[in-house]
Amino acid sequence: MWNTSYVLVSRPLGLATEANFRREELPLAEPGEGEVLVRIDYISLDPAMRGWMNAGTSYVPGVELGDVMRAFAAGEVISSRHQNWKVGQTVTGLLGVQTYAMVKGELLTAVDTNSAPLSWYLGILGMPGLTAYFGLLDKGNPKPGETVLVSGAAGMVGSLVGQIARIKGCRVAGIAGGEDKCAFLKNELNWDEVINYKSIADLPAALKERLPNGIDIFFDNVGGNILDAALTNLARGCRIIICGAISQYNQLTTQGPSNYMKIVTARGTLTGVIVLDYFDKAAEALNDLSRWLREGKIIYNEHIIPGIDQFPFALNLLFSGGNTGKLLLQNKFE
Amino acid sequence: MWNTSYVLVSRPLGLATEANFRREELPLAEPGEGEVLVRIDYISLDPAMRGWMNAGTSYVPGVELGDVMRAFAAGEVISSRHQNWKVGQTVTGLLGVQTYAMVKGELLTAVDTNSAPLSWYLGILGMPGLTAYFGLLDKGNPKPGETVLVSGAAGMVGSLVGQIARIKGCRVAGIAGGEDKCAFLKNELNWDEVINYKSIADLPAALKERLPNGIDIFFDNVGGNILDAALTNLARGCRIIICGAISQYNQLTTQGPSNYMKIVTARGTLTGVIVLDYFDKAAEALNDLSRWLREGKIIYNEHIIPGIDQFPFALNLLFSGGNTGKLLLQNKFE
Repeated sequence: MWNTSYVLVSRPLGLATEANFRREELPLAEPGEGEVLVRIDYISLDPAMRGWMNAGTSYVPGVELGDVMRAFAAGEVISSRHQNWKVGQTVTGLLGVQTYAMVKGELLTAVDTNSAPLSWYLGILGMPGLTAYFGLLDKGNPKPGETVLVSGAAGMVGSLVGQIARIKGCRVAGIAGGEDKCAFLKNELNWDEVINYKSIADLPAALKERLPNGIDIFFDNVGGNILDAALTNLARGCRIIICGAISQYNQLTTQGPSNYMKIVTARGTLTGVIVLDYFDKAAEALNDLSRWLREGKIIYNEHIIPGIDQFPFALNLLFSGGNTGKLLLQNKFE
Repeated sequence: MWNTSYVLVSRPLGLATEANFRREELPLAEPGEGEVLVRIDYISLDPAMRGWMNAGTSYVPGVELGDVMRAFAAGEVISSRHQNWKVGQTVTGLLGVQTYAMVKGELLTAVDTNSAPLSWYLGILGMPGLTAYFGLLDKGNPKPGETVLVSGAAGMVGSLVGQIARIKGCRVAGIAGGEDKCAFLKNELNWDEVINYKSIADLPAALKERLPNGIDIFFDNVGGNILDAALTNLARGCRIIICGAISQYNQLTTQGPSNYMKIVTARGTLTGVIVLDYFDKAAEALNDLSRWLREGKIIYNEHIIPGIDQFPFALNLLFSGGNTGKLLLQNKFE
């Protein structure tokens, strides 16, 4: 049996291309003492991966050149020499962009595929779900009746943030790119206001008109002009939660928010959410998220691309706005 | 008797010039019922005044074209038809850039010139003093041993913030422009680190070297490249307090902080200070500041320009870095 992996060989300047990776085919080894061999069924494609391709450390160190590209992934143990794991168990972890992973047993997390599909543990029941949950609830502290604006609103994290905000009794507005995404947010998720930034010439004016009481919580996945537009319509005491800046990850220089003084005049705060900080509280979040899914209060969509050879093309869908819902690569085995 | 005033007649694009004002000479009237006539001895020159010259509202509405330029000022009641005020009392208020002001009695604040010079009530015992005090202590919550970095460190607010931080047991660093200012901060105020940004090619590298544990509190009066440099060296859990952005007030477009994602990775917060929010707590602050002045724990310098005809030249010293300490215009009366 052979493992197919994508190894980072150069650092992208803008969007990652196939030239930044070497596709490697290596025979599978047997696990050493304490190691586990996992067959990877799903690879999570997340905006943060673009940052991991850069040199240096942001909240985690960048991927070293010559290493398999880092990614969260989910699969099944097919061979184990670690006491905690046995063949057939389903797991998640930082398993990389590859078809099989050999990892130390300590680095795996067990997931229960009786209660939810395996792939969900990379999305709503994984890092992105926890990011949305704690970013909104812990950093934002939303109160009933407050106005919550979400950018990247049709993405995995954005659409979940808005749905949780609705559960908490907030008025929810979303900014997304494209009619289909906006129709989904408006008609299927019943958000109060949805703005297609691609069809709006003056986003600040649109925000002022649609959200006349201002924005109490802005959950930003996008950055750039969308962040700057939101800053023009802040309510007194607003909380700005920076989750990502997907419009900027492929730029050589980041566009800073030129309207940042509006945070001062609005007596607001800007802060961010890093999901790593919440692992010890994950059970509480997963309990809530699972219940809301069962109760039909949350709609969860996946966008699954078959075949590891679609990497990095599939990753770039995140940056072109080509995905709706949680983006995943699915490995195919004969 | 005649009043000399500076009336805003056009809105500056960059620095304000004399052409943006009409110098008006009008005979003094007698106070109407409830009015007070004040002889203005000192006019405060503050960075915020540049923002007040713009159209629209930031934290307060801009000055209307045709109105006397807004300014805090201090003087003496010379005529009164308001029951609370009598001739000879010393007062402060938003009296404008002029030699005399006719105002409703409710808009004046009494100040005690037995305990401090009149001009101090425009500086350390006025808005700038309260801004420094509450910005640092309420928004920053400094703890002993923490590293506090101040930009515009030789200015009125900046130098006071650093001195209060030292009183609170912090390690204090300042960024200022020019050898004289840096020598003052280092030798007279005994700050731990002082950086002359005009003589440093790589400010982020200098901050990293001088503040190896990172910045716990950044009190920013400057914005632009200095803000961006500070963001590269944040300690975990840092607080960024935006007081002003003096480097940007005369720019047609504001430079946003392109390193704002560093706030997220540092688990920091960005917030601002608006002194208007603290008027009900002013007594507490003035009590502390007065005591620290008496005990010699705070050094307070003024930079006084004689003659109202030096406006707006004198104001622009704030933007060229030409002042050290609190900048004031002093009216001259024959």
